[in-house]
Amino acid sequence: MTEAVSTRPVIRIRDHAERVDDDLVVEEPVEIRLDGTPLAVVMRTPGNDAELALGFSITEGIVSGPDEVASVRDLGEGRWDVRLAEGVSVDPSQFQRNFYATSSCGVCGKASIDAIRVAGSVPPDGPEVTPDVLLGLPRRLIEEQPAFRSTGGIHAAAAFEPDGNLIAVREDVGRHNAVDKLVGHIASTRWPISELGLLVSGRVSFEIVQKAAVAGLSLVCGVSAASSLAVDLGEEFGMTVIGFLRDTGFTVYTGEDRVPGLGLPLT
Amino acid sequence: MTEAVSTRPVIRIRDHAERVDDDLVVEEPVEIRLDGTPLAVVMRTPGNDAELALGFSITEGIVSGPDEVASVRDLGEGRWDVRLAEGVSVDPSQFQRNFYATSSCGVCGKASIDAIRVAGSVPPDGPEVTPDVLLGLPRRLIEEQPAFRSTGGIHAAAAFEPDGNLIAVREDVGRHNAVDKLVGHIASTRWPISELGLLVSGRVSFEIVQKAAVAGLSLVCGVSAASSLAVDLGEEFGMTVIGFLRDTGFTVYTGEDRVPGLGLPLT
Repeated sequence: MTEAVSTRPVIRIRDHAERVDDDLVVEEPVEIRLDGTPLAVVMRTPGNDAELALGFSITEGIVSGPDEVASVRDLGEGRWDVRLAEGVSVDPSQFQRNFYATSSCGVCGKASIDAIRVAGSVPPDGPEVTPDVLLGLPRRLIEEQPAFRSTGGIHAAAAFEPDGNLIAVREDVGRHNAVDKLVGHIASTRWPISELGLLVSGRVSFEIVQKAAVAGLSLVCGVSAASSLAVDLGEEFGMTVIGFLRDTGFTVYTGEDRVPGLGLPLT
Repeated sequence: MTEAVSTRPVIRIRDHAERVDDDLVVEEPVEIRLDGTPLAVVMRTPGNDAELALGFSITEGIVSGPDEVASVRDLGEGRWDVRLAEGVSVDPSQFQRNFYATSSCGVCGKASIDAIRVAGSVPPDGPEVTPDVLLGLPRRLIEEQPAFRSTGGIHAAAAFEPDGNLIAVREDVGRHNAVDKLVGHIASTRWPISELGLLVSGRVSFEIVQKAAVAGLSLVCGVSAASSLAVDLGEEFGMTVIGFLRDTGFTVYTGEDRVPGLGLPLT
């Protein structure tokens, strides 16, 4: 299971701040091909990739069962090829059209990072937020989540000012949609929005950091864990990524400069 | 916020089973267009759709900011059109290619239900599982999640036999990938797999039920809530959908026939 986990240096804040090594779940793109034709790019945790390619082919209805598959071959560099059994024929274009998408699912990380670099919209500074302000955010978010309290099954995204004031909260069954609704809402009244922080109710995945970067938001906080690629992207663009944000503490994965007052010894 | 929540009759099991009305988060497809050209279909919770379309256009880098957008228009039937400001031109095909995908992101629900109907692979019966077996599953799942214990940021999917024996567990940063890996793993040793139940560590979304249906799995359990469209799909195909599965209770959204021994009065 080692390739599924990546150990990184982080700053963990509980009673005090300390530098520790933390385990992050690895998130990386893989391309699934059908008899050599690219079919989909999926953001996944490495490991069991042949199973992933076979299972994807079954659950997406590309093949009716394993008997229609001759083999699943590793083409290297994160590409896997599902070879159909003799006599089985499938038109890949039929499925490519169905794999309609958003970035939520698995745009190739590398291509996306390049695209963001071109956009170049992440500001060099962005907001500074003290630990006290951060610790107060989760409670305020919960208070502003009517649909979550009612259903227990919905994500939220909030924008906040450096003093902790929540500007707006949006909820959605999709984490990325909650961010899009939030950005759309704020952008319709002010632009740019780079002085604000972003808080999401769940995990900080690659797509969340990607969307924040493109929107010019440089401080991203999540109530749950961040993935390896999310932190990589944040690091590359000089963003701040914070996870496990609760009223008792949080973890700074990268960009500690925007959190003054951690009281850490210099390294 | 009412359109974000749908109230449905469910069976809630705590100390005893009772029929109650429960609030489900609504999950429905929306199509985002750019000057009339379809760009993406996103599975979202209704509400703030104009914000979603604008925010999506910004965070996906289609426009650099709100000043490049003239208006966001409701075309009806879940379609929203982002009209570019005068003098702004964007080639939609450039982005359509980037919105490479999997079903995780938002294949149109209706098209997908039709596709499943054609596949028609959900078995009429499937496994029967007693409440006691169900209540024992969450603990067993946690024991089999090494990457979750380590990182706190990964989904899991497990297949179990009617007596509660876990056949296999797969973890992934994407909930759908965990299901695909699991199905790929089992399918490489046995087929069909319709006598097994599926347990996921998080929410039961449309895509999870969709993948289960196509793979022939008729009993789907989640540790968190189910969405409205997930339950709709399960109902339409005679599946069993269970949510909030903990060692203290669970909620049956549809398909109670596969859970004998609930001790419910006949309705």
